[in-house]
Amino acid sequence: MNDIQLLIDELQKFRDARNWKQFHNTKDLALAVSIEAAELNELFLWKTIEESEQVDKNKLKEELADVFAVALLLAGKHGFDVKEIVLEKIKKNGEKYPVEKAKGTAKKYNEL
Amino acid sequence: MNDIQLLIDELQKFRDARNWKQFHNTKDLALAVSIEAAELNELFLWKTIEESEQVDKNKLKEELADVFAVALLLAGKHGFDVKEIVLEKIKKNGEKYPVEKAKGTAKKYNEL
Amino acid sequence: MNDIQLLIDELQKFRDARNWKQFHNTKDLALAVSIEAAELNELFLWKTIEESEQVDKNKLKEELADVFAVALLLAGKHGFDVKEIVLEKIKKNGEKYPVEKAKGTAKKYNEL
Amino acid sequence: MNDIQLLIDELQKFRDARNWKQFHNTKDLALAVSIEAAELNELFLWKTIEESEQVDKNKLKEELADVFAVALLLAGKHGFDVKEIVLEKIKKNGEKYPVEKAKGTAKKYNEL
Repeated sequence: MNDIQLLIDELQKFRDARNWKQFHNTKDLALAVSIEAAELNELFLWKTIEESEQVDKNKLKEELADVFAVALLLAGKHGFDVKEIVLEKIKKNGEKYPVEKAKGTAKKYNEL
Repeated sequence: MNDIQLLIDELQKFRDARNWKQFHNTKDLALAVSIEAAELNELFLWKTIEESEQVDKNKLKEELADVFAVALLLAGKHGFDVKEIVLEKIKKNGEKYPVEKAKGTAKKYNEL
Repeated sequence: MNDIQLLIDELQKFRDARNWKQFHNTKDLALAVSIEAAELNELFLWKTIEESEQVDKNKLKEELADVFAVALLLAGKHGFDVKEIVLEKIKKNGEKYPVEKAKGTAKKYNEL
Repeated sequence: MNDIQLLIDELQKFRDARNWKQFHNTKDLALAVSIEAAELNELFLWKTIEESEQVDKNKLKEELADVFAVALLLAGKHGFDVKEIVLEKIKKNGEKYPVEKAKGTAKKYNEL
């Protein structure tokens, strides 16, 4: 089995052991992604870019893992193939950000 | 190669073709996770839980893929093994939310 | 003095007593708004709309006050007149969402 | 009338003219605060702290006004006195961050 499916299986096993599927509707799972993302960002609040690179790696791993966990539960709920949807998005972003226009600039696609 | 590493490789190839590594510091990648998470949530704003389940699947795939993309770039930057950090977090959450206490309740661990 | 300026003055007094102005750059203040907003949202995670209306009012007051506090510090830093910028935005939104088109629908302006 | 109440009145007039009260439940208003906060943050993504200070002031005004607008609608829905809740939070934060401990440090209260 691939790594992503293995993680989704483990997360669903964890969820089902606690009878939490009833709470995991699409809207709240998306909200959970945002809340976990904010906890990740809190590690860097009031820190310079340089200080942020010195973040405690264990804390970073934990907060990032939480983001992956809820995002994987959302993908799993809808039966999405994460590899496929990310590869498709890379392809689509390649059209929005063609190399010749996007190289070396952080501008948004609608400003290129 | 496993799926997760394949995705990180593709995302880094995309990034490097555009010379974007210079912008991808840890703090801004974390911020990008939050911004993509908010775009995901916008799909459900002012929608009931039932309406949210009827979300356009293509839009959901795209917004969720964006969250995965930036989270994977952040994991890749730090050389994290996503499978490992998520499995570790599941284990840790199992201690915070023991089955006998957490079963069937959406309470936070500090309220159990 | 009007209420908004009074609050900005009090918040800046608080900040300056702690010598925190050095941390309050525009980017981090904006990030703080997002983080406080996520804490506000956490009150409603896994809760239905009906359950959310029964939220503990004191917690809601505190989390919402935190959002206002950082948003006011950001406005104060740039010398914005909050009354003026909100009234201007209402006017602008009136053009994006004309009554005859927007009445009774939660659609975004670009879908009207 | 004070500035804050005037803004809440204008926002509610705008809302009612469009028959939007039906969508403005507490949970979705909180979600809207987060989404508007993310749009505010997007102005600074991939930008240094110095570049962020050079942000387009009109864009900053608009995004910040959107945050205030939804936060004020949420406060108005619950009949909160914004001046009072912010002053109370300042007082409470003064206890969490006593001057002698918090001066010149960006540490969280639980790390002081």
